[in-house]
Amino acid sequence: MCRWLAYSGSPVLLEELLLKPGHSLIDQSLHSRLGATTTNGDGFGLGWYGVGDTPAVFHSIEPAWNDRNLKDLARHLISPLVFAHIRASTGGAIQQTNCHPFRHANWLWMHNGLIREFATVKRDLVLAIDASLYPEIEGSTDSEVFFHLALTFGLADDPPTAVEQAVGYIEEVGHRHGVELPIQMTVATTDGSSVWAFRYSSEGSSRSLFFSTLVGTLREEYPDNPVFQQLSDETRLVVSEPLSELAGVWNEVPESMVGIVQAGQDELRPFTPRLPASRHAVATA
Amino acid sequence: MCRWLAYSGSPVLLEELLLKPGHSLIDQSLHSRLGATTTNGDGFGLGWYGVGDTPAVFHSIEPAWNDRNLKDLARHLISPLVFAHIRASTGGAIQQTNCHPFRHANWLWMHNGLIREFATVKRDLVLAIDASLYPEIEGSTDSEVFFHLALTFGLADDPPTAVEQAVGYIEEVGHRHGVELPIQMTVATTDGSSVWAFRYSSEGSSRSLFFSTLVGTLREEYPDNPVFQQLSDETRLVVSEPLSELAGVWNEVPESMVGIVQAGQDELRPFTPRLPASRHAVATA
Amino acid sequence: MCRWLAYSGSPVLLEELLLKPGHSLIDQSLHSRLGATTTNGDGFGLGWYGVGDTPAVFHSIEPAWNDRNLKDLARHLISPLVFAHIRASTGGAIQQTNCHPFRHANWLWMHNGLIREFATVKRDLVLAIDASLYPEIEGSTDSEVFFHLALTFGLADDPPTAVEQAVGYIEEVGHRHGVELPIQMTVATTDGSSVWAFRYSSEGSSRSLFFSTLVGTLREEYPDNPVFQQLSDETRLVVSEPLSELAGVWNEVPESMVGIVQAGQDELRPFTPRLPASRHAVATA
Amino acid sequence: MCRWLAYSGSPVLLEELLLKPGHSLIDQSLHSRLGATTTNGDGFGLGWYGVGDTPAVFHSIEPAWNDRNLKDLARHLISPLVFAHIRASTGGAIQQTNCHPFRHANWLWMHNGLIREFATVKRDLVLAIDASLYPEIEGSTDSEVFFHLALTFGLADDPPTAVEQAVGYIEEVGHRHGVELPIQMTVATTDGSSVWAFRYSSEGSSRSLFFSTLVGTLREEYPDNPVFQQLSDETRLVVSEPLSELAGVWNEVPESMVGIVQAGQDELRPFTPRLPASRHAVATA
Repeated sequence: MCRWLAYSGSPVLLEELLLKPGHSLIDQSLHSRLGATTTNGDGFGLGWYGVGDTPAVFHSIEPAWNDRNLKDLARHLISPLVFAHIRASTGGAIQQTNCHPFRHANWLWMHNGLIREFATVKRDLVLAIDASLYPEIEGSTDSEVFFHLALTFGLADDPPTAVEQAVGYIEEVGHRHGVELPIQMTVATTDGSSVWAFRYSSEGSSRSLFFSTLVGTLREEYPDNPVFQQLSDETRLVVSEPLSELAGVWNEVPESMVGIVQAGQDELRPFTPRLPASRHAVATA
Repeated sequence: MCRWLAYSGSPVLLEELLLKPGHSLIDQSLHSRLGATTTNGDGFGLGWYGVGDTPAVFHSIEPAWNDRNLKDLARHLISPLVFAHIRASTGGAIQQTNCHPFRHANWLWMHNGLIREFATVKRDLVLAIDASLYPEIEGSTDSEVFFHLALTFGLADDPPTAVEQAVGYIEEVGHRHGVELPIQMTVATTDGSSVWAFRYSSEGSSRSLFFSTLVGTLREEYPDNPVFQQLSDETRLVVSEPLSELAGVWNEVPESMVGIVQAGQDELRPFTPRLPASRHAVATA
Repeated sequence: MCRWLAYSGSPVLLEELLLKPGHSLIDQSLHSRLGATTTNGDGFGLGWYGVGDTPAVFHSIEPAWNDRNLKDLARHLISPLVFAHIRASTGGAIQQTNCHPFRHANWLWMHNGLIREFATVKRDLVLAIDASLYPEIEGSTDSEVFFHLALTFGLADDPPTAVEQAVGYIEEVGHRHGVELPIQMTVATTDGSSVWAFRYSSEGSSRSLFFSTLVGTLREEYPDNPVFQQLSDETRLVVSEPLSELAGVWNEVPESMVGIVQAGQDELRPFTPRLPASRHAVATA
Repeated sequence: MCRWLAYSGSPVLLEELLLKPGHSLIDQSLHSRLGATTTNGDGFGLGWYGVGDTPAVFHSIEPAWNDRNLKDLARHLISPLVFAHIRASTGGAIQQTNCHPFRHANWLWMHNGLIREFATVKRDLVLAIDASLYPEIEGSTDSEVFFHLALTFGLADDPPTAVEQAVGYIEEVGHRHGVELPIQMTVATTDGSSVWAFRYSSEGSSRSLFFSTLVGTLREEYPDNPVFQQLSDETRLVVSEPLSELAGVWNEVPESMVGIVQAGQDELRPFTPRLPASRHAVATA
């Protein structure tokens, strides 16, 4: 129901990511091509790393396309690790606490998709959240509950496993309440150094997700493109929709996979939801 | 760049006008079919008559489709004369003072379209506004300046002539600055009893404008439709886009015309821009 | 931490209640005299009965004193039963879903005060809320949780007992977590015909609460006051701070009492928190 | 009617300026001690220099004290030159385009005070603004018009003279309309390297204005204060109210003076309004 972008690499002026590409995230807020909704005007958010130990976040309930603070910040902020998200609400309140990315300590989290029949399953999901994390929840979205489930199941220690368990638990609770296809998702999360990007849905037909090609390869294919010459080898973009139509730049992530952008070799691994190893969480319900 | 609706007739729950029709104004805020832009998410406004001598206005900078105050007001307000407007900004600031309808004493005014190269001609236009009206201008839109020009040229006394003079002056100033086609417009204005709706553009190819058919005729054609049975004979809707696909309900207003919804026989007259009869305004520039 | 007003009686223009009194609620948003905070600028809300079966609510996150929509609505709305609330947040997010009055079906609820160490006790409180009511909670305030506890314990059937049980439960949970004085409150609630107003705090030193004198008495004491001549015998105001300094108009509600404004004789009864009669709610925790 | 702060010197985390001092600007938004109004809750703004040729600005219509975006930005932005302003409206609309600081190219401008009977004199003042600057005006404040008058009279070339002429013109227009004391002001403006701070009022009794003592002196007086040890010799703060009660830190600027914070020796000069040297501006009126 939303669109998002995750950038990791050479420090970049946010404007280059958000405003300048041919089919930028801001443009997508008005005219998404691949999303489930064509207009994503129900607020947006930025998260970035730079000064300080924890990431900064900026949330707004105005449509991104005409928000002057967003434009001004984008023109004056430089960061090596940026999350950006535009929201299309499916009925939930339009408020800053419902804007992505969500933050906990040094972690950011953003989500495109939904937990189906959330009103029905919400109570059981919230019950599984660790009591020390529970008071942090300030909004009313499925995405924020999902994030806190992942934190409960060990996101900080082993992100792929924690998200597999959160999704396993969401599917278990959904099925218990008669929801056939409990979750639809692409998710990005980061601890400030690596980025994990997930593509999954209960129905095996998930929202789109793309990784940019290695900068080294792009440099060889586009020797005259000054942007590719400037970016470090490690630079990667993960997006819910391609930002340009340049051939060879975008690679679709297959169904039920998690991609990891990290120091050294990036990875693509299968993603298999499972019930939490510890039965603690489920038991508390 | 916007969409609007004017209703006059039997007192109506605003919800019936704004939220319930098959292709309601709120739905148009997300998916306009005939407008120049498909998304109208840059604020909205309502004006209605009821308690008190002057109309009430409600302006918001949030997109109409998810505004809860709008939905709640629409479900609890009844009025015989309602203006509603959704805005798609062409660059101007998103602020309540830029939301239509604009109000002066017992008058309301709303506009779809634009004064071309407004930054260039604005100063000359503002100079022609009566000095006593000038301090009322609080926003930065062409539409508010246009309204105050019409007020200056006698809107309260003879609306068609005042708007013809305002448009004549706008075209004269535009041409003086080398703007070939200075104005594009549909406009609705009311004093609380009659409604005037204008369709005009310098290029002779104006934004769409529709009047609803006489209720008596609709009652004969749709004898089983309970809505048509309840409405008074005088009830009329004027809209920038039809609210339903019911055959025979909507009549397009021809180019360069003004329609008048009033006690007794409604009227449709030619609209011919002309320079202000009094040269006072132009002279002050 | 807030200020509120409840009006029941002759249909009144909201402006008379909110903007005109010498020390009006809007004035209190800037300069409260008796409140715990002097500025109440973190949003406000209105609730009123009129058209339709359920009350209308209007919530805004802008300070009340400069909100133009509030002023315009107040000048154009007439209602026999009005709740108004201005908020001073103690840290919670400034968002419409945190603005009072809260609504459920035909009920409204507003609260001045706080549940102490809410982050600590919130989870246990939320667990006691009926599963069918739980998904309605959209904000992050203690007041909304308090309302849903009262609904769970039978607000619709017997308001004084339901609130006594909700407070009894809040105190029990607080004490279990080592909170010495779990609650501080004045609360008003209505079903659209009667109004219940509660004054209580665990420490026996509650926020101020005042009832207006019977209109019949005021008419005798102020025979020349046109307002008192126009109001019906049944008209009552309940406020957290007096709206004027007129002698004899305001009566302070004593500690640990509930006042009931209703058809026939109004009542003032002792308020004694108790644990829920049914242990169902506590058991689910 | 407002409060402001200008900082120039060693790059500083905005949080240190805005949130941490004992009597910080944010605290002043709730409890101003010397201002004409005690609550300044009608929006705020930041301007800062860093990345890019022009300064960044951030404007918000929410009260500063609870704005989460402001807090997050303040914790993650470092700049050597910062303007911050909190607004108490005297009736003008609460909208971002009315928030200070205002920006033109590399210049920032903020103002505490007012042009008296602005509705009466506005038209004549606006007429004197250079036609190329006129379309930039987007809000409805006296302060923005004042800024554009100063730009018209050569702010970029000679700030003290341009402001003297702008004030001279404002007083001349005011007197022509029978306004006895046309202006009350403290103003700060900067081109990104120097800062000019003005204190003046037609009545000779202006809003308060303070400069911080030279860092070298403070270091000698407070040898154990780590902040003073870290700041560069050139660091200066100019404020409408002292940020702390530390003896010897704050020096009140006398009436009718302009202080200049610049490379090398700072300056304090008399400020004497005068009519514009070129009569061009006045003639166009």
